[in-house]
Amino acid sequence: MTGPRLNGIIRAWEAGKPAFTCFAKLDKTLAQELSDAPYDGVVFEMEHNPYDVAALGDSLQYMLSRKKIAESGSVAPGVTPLARIPANGVEMNQFQAKQVLDRGVYGVITPHVSSVEQAYNAVASCRYAKPTGAALYEPKGVRGDGPAAAARYWGVSQAEYYAKADVWPLAPHGELLVGLMIESPEAIENLDDILTNVPGIGFCLIGEGDLSQALGYPRQYEHPEVIDAMRQIAETCHKHKVVVGNPHVGAKNVERLLSEGYKFLMSAPVRSYGVVGQGRELAGY
Amino acid sequence: MTGPRLNGIIRAWEAGKPAFTCFAKLDKTLAQELSDAPYDGVVFEMEHNPYDVAALGDSLQYMLSRKKIAESGSVAPGVTPLARIPANGVEMNQFQAKQVLDRGVYGVITPHVSSVEQAYNAVASCRYAKPTGAALYEPKGVRGDGPAAAARYWGVSQAEYYAKADVWPLAPHGELLVGLMIESPEAIENLDDILTNVPGIGFCLIGEGDLSQALGYPRQYEHPEVIDAMRQIAETCHKHKVVVGNPHVGAKNVERLLSEGYKFLMSAPVRSYGVVGQGRELAGY
Amino acid sequence: MTGPRLNGIIRAWEAGKPAFTCFAKLDKTLAQELSDAPYDGVVFEMEHNPYDVAALGDSLQYMLSRKKIAESGSVAPGVTPLARIPANGVEMNQFQAKQVLDRGVYGVITPHVSSVEQAYNAVASCRYAKPTGAALYEPKGVRGDGPAAAARYWGVSQAEYYAKADVWPLAPHGELLVGLMIESPEAIENLDDILTNVPGIGFCLIGEGDLSQALGYPRQYEHPEVIDAMRQIAETCHKHKVVVGNPHVGAKNVERLLSEGYKFLMSAPVRSYGVVGQGRELAGY
Amino acid sequence: MTGPRLNGIIRAWEAGKPAFTCFAKLDKTLAQELSDAPYDGVVFEMEHNPYDVAALGDSLQYMLSRKKIAESGSVAPGVTPLARIPANGVEMNQFQAKQVLDRGVYGVITPHVSSVEQAYNAVASCRYAKPTGAALYEPKGVRGDGPAAAARYWGVSQAEYYAKADVWPLAPHGELLVGLMIESPEAIENLDDILTNVPGIGFCLIGEGDLSQALGYPRQYEHPEVIDAMRQIAETCHKHKVVVGNPHVGAKNVERLLSEGYKFLMSAPVRSYGVVGQGRELAGY
Amino acid sequence: MTGPRLNGIIRAWEAGKPAFTCFAKLDKTLAQELSDAPYDGVVFEMEHNPYDVAALGDSLQYMLSRKKIAESGSVAPGVTPLARIPANGVEMNQFQAKQVLDRGVYGVITPHVSSVEQAYNAVASCRYAKPTGAALYEPKGVRGDGPAAAARYWGVSQAEYYAKADVWPLAPHGELLVGLMIESPEAIENLDDILTNVPGIGFCLIGEGDLSQALGYPRQYEHPEVIDAMRQIAETCHKHKVVVGNPHVGAKNVERLLSEGYKFLMSAPVRSYGVVGQGRELAGY
Amino acid sequence: MTGPRLNGIIRAWEAGKPAFTCFAKLDKTLAQELSDAPYDGVVFEMEHNPYDVAALGDSLQYMLSRKKIAESGSVAPGVTPLARIPANGVEMNQFQAKQVLDRGVYGVITPHVSSVEQAYNAVASCRYAKPTGAALYEPKGVRGDGPAAAARYWGVSQAEYYAKADVWPLAPHGELLVGLMIESPEAIENLDDILTNVPGIGFCLIGEGDLSQALGYPRQYEHPEVIDAMRQIAETCHKHKVVVGNPHVGAKNVERLLSEGYKFLMSAPVRSYGVVGQGRELAGY
Repeated sequence: MTGPRLNGIIRAWEAGKPAFTCFAKLDKTLAQELSDAPYDGVVFEMEHNPYDVAALGDSLQYMLSRKKIAESGSVAPGVTPLARIPANGVEMNQFQAKQVLDRGVYGVITPHVSSVEQAYNAVASCRYAKPTGAALYEPKGVRGDGPAAAARYWGVSQAEYYAKADVWPLAPHGELLVGLMIESPEAIENLDDILTNVPGIGFCLIGEGDLSQALGYPRQYEHPEVIDAMRQIAETCHKHKVVVGNPHVGAKNVERLLSEGYKFLMSAPVRSYGVVGQGRELAGY
Repeated sequence: MTGPRLNGIIRAWEAGKPAFTCFAKLDKTLAQELSDAPYDGVVFEMEHNPYDVAALGDSLQYMLSRKKIAESGSVAPGVTPLARIPANGVEMNQFQAKQVLDRGVYGVITPHVSSVEQAYNAVASCRYAKPTGAALYEPKGVRGDGPAAAARYWGVSQAEYYAKADVWPLAPHGELLVGLMIESPEAIENLDDILTNVPGIGFCLIGEGDLSQALGYPRQYEHPEVIDAMRQIAETCHKHKVVVGNPHVGAKNVERLLSEGYKFLMSAPVRSYGVVGQGRELAGY
Repeated sequence: MTGPRLNGIIRAWEAGKPAFTCFAKLDKTLAQELSDAPYDGVVFEMEHNPYDVAALGDSLQYMLSRKKIAESGSVAPGVTPLARIPANGVEMNQFQAKQVLDRGVYGVITPHVSSVEQAYNAVASCRYAKPTGAALYEPKGVRGDGPAAAARYWGVSQAEYYAKADVWPLAPHGELLVGLMIESPEAIENLDDILTNVPGIGFCLIGEGDLSQALGYPRQYEHPEVIDAMRQIAETCHKHKVVVGNPHVGAKNVERLLSEGYKFLMSAPVRSYGVVGQGRELAGY
Repeated sequence: MTGPRLNGIIRAWEAGKPAFTCFAKLDKTLAQELSDAPYDGVVFEMEHNPYDVAALGDSLQYMLSRKKIAESGSVAPGVTPLARIPANGVEMNQFQAKQVLDRGVYGVITPHVSSVEQAYNAVASCRYAKPTGAALYEPKGVRGDGPAAAARYWGVSQAEYYAKADVWPLAPHGELLVGLMIESPEAIENLDDILTNVPGIGFCLIGEGDLSQALGYPRQYEHPEVIDAMRQIAETCHKHKVVVGNPHVGAKNVERLLSEGYKFLMSAPVRSYGVVGQGRELAGY
Repeated sequence: MTGPRLNGIIRAWEAGKPAFTCFAKLDKTLAQELSDAPYDGVVFEMEHNPYDVAALGDSLQYMLSRKKIAESGSVAPGVTPLARIPANGVEMNQFQAKQVLDRGVYGVITPHVSSVEQAYNAVASCRYAKPTGAALYEPKGVRGDGPAAAARYWGVSQAEYYAKADVWPLAPHGELLVGLMIESPEAIENLDDILTNVPGIGFCLIGEGDLSQALGYPRQYEHPEVIDAMRQIAETCHKHKVVVGNPHVGAKNVERLLSEGYKFLMSAPVRSYGVVGQGRELAGY
Repeated sequence: MTGPRLNGIIRAWEAGKPAFTCFAKLDKTLAQELSDAPYDGVVFEMEHNPYDVAALGDSLQYMLSRKKIAESGSVAPGVTPLARIPANGVEMNQFQAKQVLDRGVYGVITPHVSSVEQAYNAVASCRYAKPTGAALYEPKGVRGDGPAAAARYWGVSQAEYYAKADVWPLAPHGELLVGLMIESPEAIENLDDILTNVPGIGFCLIGEGDLSQALGYPRQYEHPEVIDAMRQIAETCHKHKVVVGNPHVGAKNVERLLSEGYKFLMSAPVRSYGVVGQGRELAGY
């Protein structure tokens, strides 16, 4: 009942490759476009954009391409959708992870996680309950049971969904990714502890914006102190063999980031305006 | 480039079978449920329900089941969606057929068609233009060209869509169905003319409600005059080998309708309420 | 100013009868249909479906049937709407109960309640504040005051709403029901404590899905250990004269559940597809 | 089966009184507010605001007040909703009247009607078909048959709806009002003809804005030529005993209009801003 | 009261420059993005996308940038929105132009215009009525009067709106553009007649897709017969000094089109995916 | 980079004047109307109305008036929007303040704040992080960094937004207002402590409804005990030079409130119904 690997981000990592992703607003048109883009995954950004679970469901449905599914004959998505929820780690929220997982995302990113307790809760909120003493019991699952919509979206039976809907790499066949935003000095300080004590974390994503603010250099991503703080995060992740990610990958830093071992690389889509510039020039103005 | 027959209603007919369908409101939940129902097709009813093309697009998208597509490896829909538009034949409307076809439906039903001119327009509005003198030139297509969304929804390339997006049975490989509501004495009177002079009609659907009103026996579907008028429609259709349909098929009339050669049989879903009745009885009240 | 009993679920119980209900998604069409169904109540399910308070307001409004209200001359709803909110008991959430009550539901179900503190908060979040020392002061109300929309929906004045918007059976004329999902071993362990120490609980609803997961027998509702755990819950409820409910009542278990004293019986609506099967058979395929 | 008069505008007229109404955008909050306002009716304005039939359905549903219905024990609405559709008379549109009537409005206003043929179509599009030779056959009904939603909204059975859903005063027990916007020199010229030849017109509403534009005095409602043109319309209406209406009734003209026999008086709601002015003055600035 | 030229497309033309535009779906996010793009105008495409006037209103509102308006101190939009409506010329529709103008667009494009009568109606439906004998009386305006929302959107008083809301270049200070899709052999045949007899046409936009279909070379825009037909349109437009436009301007044809005198150049935005390609290459796969 | 004061409520206070505001539902039409009203600010009420962040974004966008912005040449809003979020202080919520600030409001009101810890969190959730030891470090900011939408809405660059998006009066050039609902005996008891220990509070708004409930006199705003409790709040605020506000300002109490030093005065808009009353009287009934 294992079947093919569904989560394309994990698939890339299992093949030793970095995964490329981007953030996206909840928007049907954009969701459809991104399902045809060359990303491994897409993160529906619901922290700074409205947290709207019904709209997430629509965006997910608009990612389905009849042609691609029929041609592949597989239920593995071409571009794997995750969601970033709005509640900070310290809020110890559980319902947001449940609601976005129940729509069908393959992973959840929690902002501002900075302690073992918060990280534990972030993982626990993505896991179903198990009987005491079961293998991989910790972090103890608190995700309520209601898999019908997600199973349908994934294209699997409910039994298959139960088998797959656990967190990777803790559950080696798990298809869910828990991502933590590491974006404060406290988080950096506690990161070694977090990664030592909380199994089930799929990746750590550096929140450059918040981190640079907290360090006093807002959005100065190349400031030595910011760079240094990021390097510290990356190293701690490497030590624990947890993937580390960067949200602002561009022409300037992509080579460096790859060489530093980043494997969750977010690179925003760019819109250009056809031949307007060229046309204006040709028209002589 | 022909590929498999996409339109499941036509597929049934080509196999000599009647097609079973139902009306549906535009509703994402219902659309998803109906995509799992044992119908050959579903008619999104936009005559007496709001004509809302964006909502139609959503309903169509919610009919996509990743699992079914992957398992079949085919882009043919399990349940084939058509749409009924609101403009009466006499309004000589063209934009409504265009807009619903552009969302991806596989056919359009026009209400109250009662003349050759109206029927011609109903067919023409579902066809793309062709050069004068081309084969199957008439009815001359007036559907504007903008197939991107529909082609994506069908799961075919734009070139394939052009090849398939013509009216059956006029175009033998066409996947679009033009249905005419025949629902007035004038329409009955002109039906022979219509079917003689307008190629491209996929089926005639009897509008029992309107017809019975026009005959003075509102909703008395078993009234001899109503029955008689319907028989006349069926016979004219049979004479021209055009499928005839009935919108209210139930336990009472299904056998008769099948024996009379109806092949587009609309049978409404029925909702029952679990064991409430039984439970109340057991509980002694 | 007491007036008729509004909450139909309580009305059934006060008459010694079990109450039949079902879960429903937030959907205007469905809400309208269910308002005509033979249920005593309906639970708008916002735990595994999107928590969308505006959509809840629409669903509630679509439950109003002018004819039924005029014929009864009473403001008591035919089918009484409750809501299940998404936050687990441990989240100690208060705003969700407030927001769904402010739309007009007659009760709130909180998932995963497993301690006295959580149960206390679940009840408190449904109650308005009272002065210290007032009768029935505990659990101390924390629901913010803003009754205009709910009072209009109930069809009562704001003064009447204040008088009725308290939790039953703690307040004998109260019209609000607090339901707790009991769905984990911890909850079972603490249930006696909860029911001893927290007044104002209207019913306990067994979460079979979660419970069976936590016991290691996902969705095996007939497994002896699952059955046994459920029996324990039912017995503790009976001991405290608190109604116990079951979410999956069907032909197989309805007699047993009634005999075991369950009084909140959820029985899902069933959709069947008219004469399609019979028609196909008659058509010979 | 006649029952009480439902349409409150007709009720006022039958009692010899003028009816007071206003225009409203499609907006749930506004619809609810207006259902408590002292108007006889409200016209949902879909000519210059979006023609959105689903939104109309929502607005209508939000006009239902459980309390008022229960207290009156009657299905007659307190404030009777009509709709103004966008298609000009010359477009010979039929589907818009059908779609708004199918949501449940009690009347339809068509803009820019200026000929007998257009007026005939405006009335015909609000009527169901009848058998040739039936009483009150003309204008021959072309409204498609699909009364389920409207009958539910009115609170009557479908049979009752059929009996009541005809145009007043042509059908004395009819509950539907056909209103014509008279707003051009051509319309004025043809008005006598129209009223002579087209039965079933409920009222003529003067389009002051358009009329003043066409006369070359945009929005100068007190210009003698505009006044004169309006007087001509009123007189022709009086001659045919058809109600005449004015869309801009205010303190300045209400007395004159009443004395001139206007009976459909539209008076816009006014919003004022509490004690802001007084407060600022008291605060000394 | 003339004020600055509002319509940026006309502004470009008055300065002797071509105008660059693109099509856009109705989407708030996209609308906001495009308001910052280097286009002169944007055409909200409602022919092949849903015709949804409320959504158009939202898109227009999301084009407002507080910063740009404040910095310019002018009400002239940076990127000027037009709309393409769905009804073909032959439908003689009037309400669609009215509804999109009433939301605030600065011009309307009508598909498939192929005769003098159709072109006349397309222009007339964008104009307010004038008294007989007034200057620039023809094409006689039939746009209903309801300018409040559009005037607010433009940022002008209603009196100013009346002064500006006429078709350019017929009215030299007019700010509205009427565009005709010329996309069939009949249209080409009649174009000289149309431009001779119908004043008030702002530009002709060649419908390459439809035209190439009608000529038998679907989407073969470089086919000699297609090129030839387009050249014919351009020449006729030049003869009458009416702007001609092309919907598919790209690197390949921009120089030729400019040299052939096209002045309404539609160049689609292009989305690229950051450094994904480069990143993958660097990562060695 | 300071620029003009944006927040009109603060502007009023800095000029020594009281600020007049009102509550509003999330509704595009209402938002547009209120942007033309004589208020200094408006509070989008999302505690008792649905908390719907996407709808808040729409309402904010509909407050933009092109004309007013162009005429003023300033990005300062005419009427300054704030939001009231639903989570009670005790919930220690952070994501709601973040989400409404990220849409562009200029302040956040938190209901039921009754302790130093809760007040601290209410302020902290509106502030960006700063490096340890920075000036005005406390309350330590926990608002996640994602200012793009808010900066665009304010009409400033992201750098300017960072400079301005701090809480007033703690940050003298800050444009954000933190408001606390003081509405329980506990809150009154702790208010002196709160105002002594938590910098950054912009104003305290008395929740008369809740307070009067908690005191046992629901909605009896003139009851001596209620009046007394309110006076106590006002005095404590005055002692700490923190603005105090009242939510129900009307003709009866405006003079008293002004004399008692209230400076955040909420006065609800009032809708009246034109000349309906006068008309009915003139018509003699």
